[in-house]
Amino acid sequence: MSNRTVFYVSDGTGITAEAFGNAILAQFEAPLRRVRLPFLDSVDKAHQAVRQINHAAEVDGKRPLVFTTVVNTEVLTVLKTQCKAKLFDLFDTFVQPIEEELGVKSNHRVGRFSDISRSKEYNDRIEAINFALAHDDGQSNRDLESADVILVGVSRSGKTPTSLYLAMQHGLKASNYPLIPEDFDRRKLPPALVPHRKKIFGLTIAPERLSEIRNERRPGSRYASLENCRREVHEAEAMMRREGIRWLSTTTKSIEEIATTILQELQPGRLAY
Amino acid sequence: MSNRTVFYVSDGTGITAEAFGNAILAQFEAPLRRVRLPFLDSVDKAHQAVRQINHAAEVDGKRPLVFTTVVNTEVLTVLKTQCKAKLFDLFDTFVQPIEEELGVKSNHRVGRFSDISRSKEYNDRIEAINFALAHDDGQSNRDLESADVILVGVSRSGKTPTSLYLAMQHGLKASNYPLIPEDFDRRKLPPALVPHRKKIFGLTIAPERLSEIRNERRPGSRYASLENCRREVHEAEAMMRREGIRWLSTTTKSIEEIATTILQELQPGRLAY
Repeated sequence: MSNRTVFYVSDGTGITAEAFGNAILAQFEAPLRRVRLPFLDSVDKAHQAVRQINHAAEVDGKRPLVFTTVVNTEVLTVLKTQCKAKLFDLFDTFVQPIEEELGVKSNHRVGRFSDISRSKEYNDRIEAINFALAHDDGQSNRDLESADVILVGVSRSGKTPTSLYLAMQHGLKASNYPLIPEDFDRRKLPPALVPHRKKIFGLTIAPERLSEIRNERRPGSRYASLENCRREVHEAEAMMRREGIRWLSTTTKSIEEIATTILQELQPGRLAY
Repeated sequence: MSNRTVFYVSDGTGITAEAFGNAILAQFEAPLRRVRLPFLDSVDKAHQAVRQINHAAEVDGKRPLVFTTVVNTEVLTVLKTQCKAKLFDLFDTFVQPIEEELGVKSNHRVGRFSDISRSKEYNDRIEAINFALAHDDGQSNRDLESADVILVGVSRSGKTPTSLYLAMQHGLKASNYPLIPEDFDRRKLPPALVPHRKKIFGLTIAPERLSEIRNERRPGSRYASLENCRREVHEAEAMMRREGIRWLSTTTKSIEEIATTILQELQPGRLAY
């Protein structure tokens, strides 16, 4: 099967069209070239997009797939009538049945992100990102009471990307704290964390994988040695068990999966959608 | 209209169901309570979910809306036959027409993130996040040649969250560099950036908004004063114009919109989907 082009077409950023299209296309082994066409907010731009889509149809010798979340009726009409493509209109398919179910008309707003930059939700999210950065890797004990989540685990177990993801995607204030040999010697949690036990979640990782990751950063070091990784992971897991901290292994999990599990377990009250 | 509950139900993280459902529901003014039910990977868990959904139906006195990306046929059957809800099956609606269009069967894989944690794409993403952190706020001039994007702008114009978003969402190595009074006095770009002009993108912001943001951080400071913000923004924009740097104003834009515009303008070759 030769190549075929997929277009994500939107009058907003196209993020929804892309996330949804990619999830669906993950069901297929087919080789596909992906193109995002965002900000399609005028008939002129629609015609330009049509030219690009039809050009791909010609070059590929196959109809492109088009996933669209365009709301503007005129723009959508241009696409629907002039694209030589298989078009999937994500809104059209679902908005009308929801209108019927809710008994209200939709307002034909574009995207979920428009005009959001001054909203409370948006400012919370930026504040959460700043919080995650300021509280990365145990940098600060200040304001831990305002944290929604505190991640603990050995160095390179995935705390930083998970904290940033929780902040960016969900507006949660996530701090993270490394568990270090000093903590293991004392056999106690870092003292600053003790009052916040309910918000603590632990990440662990298979020693073999940890050693690989650390070796990329500091090749051949004692820090990266399998023996040391085994010991640290063992100590960290023993500590979490002793302290009654919920935890999961990040070894085969994506950031999204880790974050989703943490949300399920901790159920923080403040959760932005 | 009284409250109604929306469920995002998935055998993966539910992120796709949620992103899509939220984008659609943004078309409606209706007050809705949102609940994510992820990792629904067994018939047992499906029955549990059904109980939760039907309980909401009873409490609300209205059918819940259910957006599902569940792929597992048995799990899906339980949901479809037993939920007292209006169910939107995102995959079912689109997967079959795509099978017909591509002439191949789908493989019923779950989600886009499963088993991804050891993939090249995933490792690139983690590396990109680490790069963004190491190159935040002009911290490092090392490895700038391996950056995909270099953001410049005055302090608090949105560089850090945008860099992290580009890294997390697209696996791009984004560094960011503040433009500071010293640069304005010299009337030149920071020298380390000059060889990388093609990868530079500028962020600017309305002085009034900048002053608000800075005042949250350092209330009453000269740094936050409207007069100083006006001068810095003016100088930064003059510099970007002089140096031929593409730029946009972040004043009313979300991180997603800023990132999408940057991708469109710079068209970095390496772009993870």
